[in-house]
Amino acid sequence: MKKTRKIGLLILLLLAGGLAVEAQQTRTEHDLLGEKQIPADAYYGVQTARALENFPVSGIKTNFYPDYVKAYAMVKLAAARANAEDGRLNQEKLELIEKACQAIIEGKYHDYFLVDMYQGGAGTSANMNANEVIANIALEMGGHEKGRYDIIEPHDDLNMGQSTNDVYPTAIKVALLLHNDKLVAELEMLSQAFHAKGDEFKHILKMGRTEGQDAVPMTLGQEFHAFGNQLDAEIKSLKDMEKYLYEQNMGATAIGTGITASPGYAEHCATHLAKITGKPMYLSKDLIAATSSQQGFVMYSSALKSTAVALSKISSDLIFLASGPRTGIFEINLPALQPGSSIMPGKVNPVMPELMNLVTFKVMGNDLTVTLAAHSGLLQLNAYEPVEAVAIMESQGLLFKTLPLFRTQCIDGITANEDVTTRYIERSVGIVTALNPVLGYDKTTELAKEALETGKGIIELIREKKLLTEDQIKKLLDPEALTGQKE
Amino acid sequence: MKKTRKIGLLILLLLAGGLAVEAQQTRTEHDLLGEKQIPADAYYGVQTARALENFPVSGIKTNFYPDYVKAYAMVKLAAARANAEDGRLNQEKLELIEKACQAIIEGKYHDYFLVDMYQGGAGTSANMNANEVIANIALEMGGHEKGRYDIIEPHDDLNMGQSTNDVYPTAIKVALLLHNDKLVAELEMLSQAFHAKGDEFKHILKMGRTEGQDAVPMTLGQEFHAFGNQLDAEIKSLKDMEKYLYEQNMGATAIGTGITASPGYAEHCATHLAKITGKPMYLSKDLIAATSSQQGFVMYSSALKSTAVALSKISSDLIFLASGPRTGIFEINLPALQPGSSIMPGKVNPVMPELMNLVTFKVMGNDLTVTLAAHSGLLQLNAYEPVEAVAIMESQGLLFKTLPLFRTQCIDGITANEDVTTRYIERSVGIVTALNPVLGYDKTTELAKEALETGKGIIELIREKKLLTEDQIKKLLDPEALTGQKE
Amino acid sequence: MKKTRKIGLLILLLLAGGLAVEAQQTRTEHDLLGEKQIPADAYYGVQTARALENFPVSGIKTNFYPDYVKAYAMVKLAAARANAEDGRLNQEKLELIEKACQAIIEGKYHDYFLVDMYQGGAGTSANMNANEVIANIALEMGGHEKGRYDIIEPHDDLNMGQSTNDVYPTAIKVALLLHNDKLVAELEMLSQAFHAKGDEFKHILKMGRTEGQDAVPMTLGQEFHAFGNQLDAEIKSLKDMEKYLYEQNMGATAIGTGITASPGYAEHCATHLAKITGKPMYLSKDLIAATSSQQGFVMYSSALKSTAVALSKISSDLIFLASGPRTGIFEINLPALQPGSSIMPGKVNPVMPELMNLVTFKVMGNDLTVTLAAHSGLLQLNAYEPVEAVAIMESQGLLFKTLPLFRTQCIDGITANEDVTTRYIERSVGIVTALNPVLGYDKTTELAKEALETGKGIIELIREKKLLTEDQIKKLLDPEALTGQKE
Amino acid sequence: MKKTRKIGLLILLLLAGGLAVEAQQTRTEHDLLGEKQIPADAYYGVQTARALENFPVSGIKTNFYPDYVKAYAMVKLAAARANAEDGRLNQEKLELIEKACQAIIEGKYHDYFLVDMYQGGAGTSANMNANEVIANIALEMGGHEKGRYDIIEPHDDLNMGQSTNDVYPTAIKVALLLHNDKLVAELEMLSQAFHAKGDEFKHILKMGRTEGQDAVPMTLGQEFHAFGNQLDAEIKSLKDMEKYLYEQNMGATAIGTGITASPGYAEHCATHLAKITGKPMYLSKDLIAATSSQQGFVMYSSALKSTAVALSKISSDLIFLASGPRTGIFEINLPALQPGSSIMPGKVNPVMPELMNLVTFKVMGNDLTVTLAAHSGLLQLNAYEPVEAVAIMESQGLLFKTLPLFRTQCIDGITANEDVTTRYIERSVGIVTALNPVLGYDKTTELAKEALETGKGIIELIREKKLLTEDQIKKLLDPEALTGQKE
Repeated sequence: MKKTRKIGLLILLLLAGGLAVEAQQTRTEHDLLGEKQIPADAYYGVQTARALENFPVSGIKTNFYPDYVKAYAMVKLAAARANAEDGRLNQEKLELIEKACQAIIEGKYHDYFLVDMYQGGAGTSANMNANEVIANIALEMGGHEKGRYDIIEPHDDLNMGQSTNDVYPTAIKVALLLHNDKLVAELEMLSQAFHAKGDEFKHILKMGRTEGQDAVPMTLGQEFHAFGNQLDAEIKSLKDMEKYLYEQNMGATAIGTGITASPGYAEHCATHLAKITGKPMYLSKDLIAATSSQQGFVMYSSALKSTAVALSKISSDLIFLASGPRTGIFEINLPALQPGSSIMPGKVNPVMPELMNLVTFKVMGNDLTVTLAAHSGLLQLNAYEPVEAVAIMESQGLLFKTLPLFRTQCIDGITANEDVTTRYIERSVGIVTALNPVLGYDKTTELAKEALETGKGIIELIREKKLLTEDQIKKLLDPEALTGQKE
Repeated sequence: MKKTRKIGLLILLLLAGGLAVEAQQTRTEHDLLGEKQIPADAYYGVQTARALENFPVSGIKTNFYPDYVKAYAMVKLAAARANAEDGRLNQEKLELIEKACQAIIEGKYHDYFLVDMYQGGAGTSANMNANEVIANIALEMGGHEKGRYDIIEPHDDLNMGQSTNDVYPTAIKVALLLHNDKLVAELEMLSQAFHAKGDEFKHILKMGRTEGQDAVPMTLGQEFHAFGNQLDAEIKSLKDMEKYLYEQNMGATAIGTGITASPGYAEHCATHLAKITGKPMYLSKDLIAATSSQQGFVMYSSALKSTAVALSKISSDLIFLASGPRTGIFEINLPALQPGSSIMPGKVNPVMPELMNLVTFKVMGNDLTVTLAAHSGLLQLNAYEPVEAVAIMESQGLLFKTLPLFRTQCIDGITANEDVTTRYIERSVGIVTALNPVLGYDKTTELAKEALETGKGIIELIREKKLLTEDQIKKLLDPEALTGQKE
Repeated sequence: MKKTRKIGLLILLLLAGGLAVEAQQTRTEHDLLGEKQIPADAYYGVQTARALENFPVSGIKTNFYPDYVKAYAMVKLAAARANAEDGRLNQEKLELIEKACQAIIEGKYHDYFLVDMYQGGAGTSANMNANEVIANIALEMGGHEKGRYDIIEPHDDLNMGQSTNDVYPTAIKVALLLHNDKLVAELEMLSQAFHAKGDEFKHILKMGRTEGQDAVPMTLGQEFHAFGNQLDAEIKSLKDMEKYLYEQNMGATAIGTGITASPGYAEHCATHLAKITGKPMYLSKDLIAATSSQQGFVMYSSALKSTAVALSKISSDLIFLASGPRTGIFEINLPALQPGSSIMPGKVNPVMPELMNLVTFKVMGNDLTVTLAAHSGLLQLNAYEPVEAVAIMESQGLLFKTLPLFRTQCIDGITANEDVTTRYIERSVGIVTALNPVLGYDKTTELAKEALETGKGIIELIREKKLLTEDQIKKLLDPEALTGQKE
Repeated sequence: MKKTRKIGLLILLLLAGGLAVEAQQTRTEHDLLGEKQIPADAYYGVQTARALENFPVSGIKTNFYPDYVKAYAMVKLAAARANAEDGRLNQEKLELIEKACQAIIEGKYHDYFLVDMYQGGAGTSANMNANEVIANIALEMGGHEKGRYDIIEPHDDLNMGQSTNDVYPTAIKVALLLHNDKLVAELEMLSQAFHAKGDEFKHILKMGRTEGQDAVPMTLGQEFHAFGNQLDAEIKSLKDMEKYLYEQNMGATAIGTGITASPGYAEHCATHLAKITGKPMYLSKDLIAATSSQQGFVMYSSALKSTAVALSKISSDLIFLASGPRTGIFEINLPALQPGSSIMPGKVNPVMPELMNLVTFKVMGNDLTVTLAAHSGLLQLNAYEPVEAVAIMESQGLLFKTLPLFRTQCIDGITANEDVTTRYIERSVGIVTALNPVLGYDKTTELAKEALETGKGIIELIREKKLLTEDQIKKLLDPEALTGQKE
């Protein structure tokens, strides 16, 4: 409880700060649409204030995802360094902006990244929120009052050589990459958990099933290693799809022609961004194409969907295998986490695979949202990137928060019911398949039919009919041979 | 085999007719883009010929769905009658057009409805194909040569007071309604099959399962009646959603303002269309709204999706219940339709529920196609209605062709393994739930726990602990009471 | 700012209350899995505490949607009254439970409905959270200490004759219905706004467009009335689809057999629930079918999707019509809400239609989530209802929060550029369509072609060629006639 | 017409062959379910005959896609060679099977690949159809009668060391790869067409647009090159995603344990398959994981979806840019393919972009079908691969048939309306953006505002206010500088 309390207090303090309730004192800012009073101690400015009024939609703000706030700081830092390198931003300003961005990257000032993630205007509000907050932090760090835009200006300095149309998608890409690291790390731990169970269950022989029907023998270890290997394939794909996010368009400015950016700026910015993020992000060779292209979001979201498909299939398999205890398959036990039922005493439900499954359904739905947004672009820009950001970050967040629960509260504690799996093996007819190469499909089909009709075992029938020698039986029906495992 | 042969020959003849291979003789037709040679014996004209060249896309043509061809004849017939009523179409022309349309409604001349269902132009090709074929049939019936458009003209007579923009969506709606009758009929038979099994399995006691875990007793009959009742609810919904297809916009012409249509035409056409189709189709009160609205297609497609969801769930349940024979649930047997495996002798798979399931996945995918097309309309028209037609008709067709297979080759032949269901009931702990009202949740939870740990039965424990009298036991654990069934 | 501040303070207070941080003092509770310390002043109990540990997933809790919390109170109130009517719950308990439920319905104690909406266990945690909180409120109101379950017990009293499997879906349905009232109210105001603009723009003649190409004349008023009428159709559908949510299964208990419920309870509960909610909710005739059926959620979600499709199409149309100012269509002006660009001075973007559009993409994605969850049910239950609740409530919430912004900050302020629409009408060739009935399609096609090639106007050409008298011209090309409007 | 006629005749002949109607003579075959009469001259056998009865669903058969038939021959050829290498298949049989497979790869005997692509049983029917046809061709080539399975047996020889569960997904993968080559080739030609237009329109200055609003200058050439580059990115992705299809599981047999396959067979088969297909297909390292994994299909389908998203966006852009002629944007002309309207004379619609768009909606819907099927797998197998095959092949086929139409009948013939684009540039205010770096955002905002209010031009105002020298104006507003193009 103590931890929760601390977090609670933290939230209180953050909110208290964020909402900045000493509103008696205000400063006046203005823009194209006129003047506006801003709380004197707010780090944001007039455009953020307009956005707060315009878009009270979902309550999910930029700072719901700390990595997303950091991404803005990284992008703005790269841009400032590139502008300084080109001689357009003086050293003094650069240093203040650098310090401001660094503070944000370290987790400070996130409370002022307040605009709702759902917003019209193709992300202009989110970008201006970042420009205003960084400008005011820099001003304060330089010993100036907030709002002294005559010294550091949100547009002219923080948005120098930039446009929402390059900053916004690039910041999203950086955030997705930072999130992907977390997701991959969680998936790797989950995969390891499956592989650990694979090793643990290495010698537990069981019947494989196809189409719900008895198939041929395998080990429970093979089954769990297969889960692990399928996740490994998804991990590989998630890492592989990162490359679609590395291509960025900083320097494109409004539509990709680079208007207002100085020559060389784009290249310099790319270099800085790669260094700051630690990811091999690079400048697109066609900035006009890159500015309206949504391929990066579509392809990365597809990898999330693919991962969701795999996790959903695995979760449903676990529910199937753990069904019972008395009237189901019951080859494995999942740990009990809560009384399973408000009415049926003693019932323990597979809550974690269920949770995993329902999270995957949201991820798959979000992938459709991305598709819809991506195909709805118009000419030089796609104004629906905000909902792509919402959808993909939600999917990532749901996954990387659910995966550790799924792993620690479910997978790690799975135990096998070897008596059950052994009984199934003994009763099954499926081992007849192993005799195909010796007896032929026609003959083995007859054997299987007779076994099913009489209730007799396959080996029993073989012996009765003297179809094979004991040596052949031993060799053909050896568990290791049957399961294809080589010791 | 004989039947197949006949159909084969029929196809040959139809194709032979349709492709009209006596191409030496042609007639000349022209349009805005210039002249074009048309096979002399073809009932279609220049615009169809252009469409055949422009859209060789999918091979799925208007006449892939006979009801769709009939729908055009119905719509054109209604329009002709309305135009005659208004005095714009003379009696002689009307009679010829009526005869032509009637012939098509009876199934003739379908071979000339040849344009690919995938087409640009918002359905203009499909509409003009209909106009041309009906005009030429009418000409021929009037003793004239094909192509004598000075007598009956595809635009001026057949498209009189009409536009693709009212004819096309209305024809689609009529086709969907005709298809829906077939679909509903098949679903009703399937529901009856489930209810019949429900009656048959009325006294077979089994354990219900929630979340894959043993829950409380029920009968297999209740389970199958529930399948039937869920389908009944879908049938009701499919019929109910028809109303979204009844609203039609004949008389809207190009954009809903009724340009070129005579006053009163729209109302008259609506009356005729309702009479001809036998469906209560009616004129929209805002023809501009109706001309671009896709609500009818979206809502009807949603009902198909909902039906698919129910069928998919039922199919998966059947696969689960029939799993085995030795290592699964095995409460029921599905009829064997084919050797189940190319490698595993004796294996019989649940091919029909699988077929049903995979058809439903296509239906759900098609519903998304409809959503995508519907939201992509622009101003006064949605040019993507062709793919909505493709998607919905494909879904309907797949369903009404698969449902009888699913019913006759699977549901009708299902048998119960009462020994299995009885064994499950006897072993289960779930009946403890029935003791809640007497013993309280806490006490029954302890009982359940002890039963699971010791392997003892619930009744055994109750007796051991003298928690209930024999009378109480009998009353509380009476199967009829447990399953809530009143005789 | 003042309003924001108040809301901020409110949040602070709620949080302060909700987190209830005097954790030194605890009480001990226990369940199947063992004992657990609960903060002494918490209204929730052991099962909620387990859920808080098990499902820290999304941060979206039951109380994110106040109507959802109220729904639980309504359902529990109905159940308590039914149980009292059947003599199973004594009057004293009933009165306390009634007072507790009423308080929640009035908006109190919502801070304790804390379980994450993402949860495994088919909603058991949400149901038990409700049972525990109501029990403790009732205890407190009765002058007892919290946790005195010997007096009022969360399972035995609050869940009497109930199961998560009937309470949970029913509470969701009630919440969706309450939300739907809000959504419909907002849509009605939006529709009225469109109709008001329709009246305002009644006499502004403009060109209609199909497939992006010049079509025939209409008025801007007709265009806006069509938007309104399309929304009216969606409103009708949303109300109509409510009926799929009226069917409820209270009394089904675990799987629909009514185990633990007393005879007559289900019917009584249905009557009370209808009275309490003010909605004609009714008892399903097959409680087994109803307990696993997801049709209500699927069909209602489909209506949301259909509404989203209509809103998306309208939003894109507004963006198209307002494109410009110098290089677009520019028939209308949208109000300026914020400087449109961080780089392009003076640019004002269509932020509200964009916001509307991106919200609709999330709604459509959520509909897929519902489909996926709904088809994944297993036998007597669908364990994925929690994500259906998340998806549908999110969609409703996004819509009813965005609609007033869209209306007041966009639609209400739209103005027309009549000079632009007039210029288009004068230049257009499309009015030639009106001459079809007099001159025939072939002749008018030639006219159109000549006009396009020479740049001449249609009327100019008609006069040149003396095709019509001035009287005919006046009559045929009269704006009212052209637009089909009768004064 | 001539070409069509030839194709028509070809179809007739194929059908005549395929239906092979001398059914008086039959041969008797049998399987697990009993005996069955097979047309004496049919190359298929009893299992195909059962499938023809069981699955008359869609009419889309294996041979609807010739590459799919070839894929089976390639897989069976690789397996036969591997079995021969291992000494299990004798040389004589191998030679006959090789000849049979080669003939199929050359396009012969496709008429006998007749099973419906919609099938239950996880593809068993399709696999057995291939086994039977190849066996009978081989028999005939060896001078034997069809049906002499004592000489060459469909199971024991053609399915040796194989199972539907490895053959079927592998054959699908091969087919998808063959199709992908066609698709990529068509996309490359389309991209080239866009790039050619990009070069052609290199010097046509126009206004870029973001969010439908005037942005900053660019060239029409840049716009078309961007289309080309976006397609190039999709081509790269489609090629890249091939790798997910290279991993195959031949040798897995039933569930991945390799039961019935000889040691070394899997590796040999992989080598042969890579050689035969010319694609770097390789053996999965975990055959159990690979047998149930659907990642290959999901990821490849995602790349199709991404391509569809790009094509849809481009198509909508073309429709927007070509809108008009008198009341739209009208910067470009699309070739006229057909009279655009059945009612509006002279109207020419953007039918090809519309066709492209509606095809993409089907592709996106099909991707959902794949998702649904893929997540519905159960334990060691996914029985829904047939519908994944249907969905992906349909998408590929629709795309590679539509792309050449889109290219040759639309893109290649696009012309620019330079007078229009020039007029837009002259009237636009957007060039003010270029002055940001010199005048600052605040000042330029004022300029823009004044220009919009007074109707004056930006340069006019600059001169009036003497804000810049003529030299500065020339340099800053130079078209090449503005569009970022370096000569």
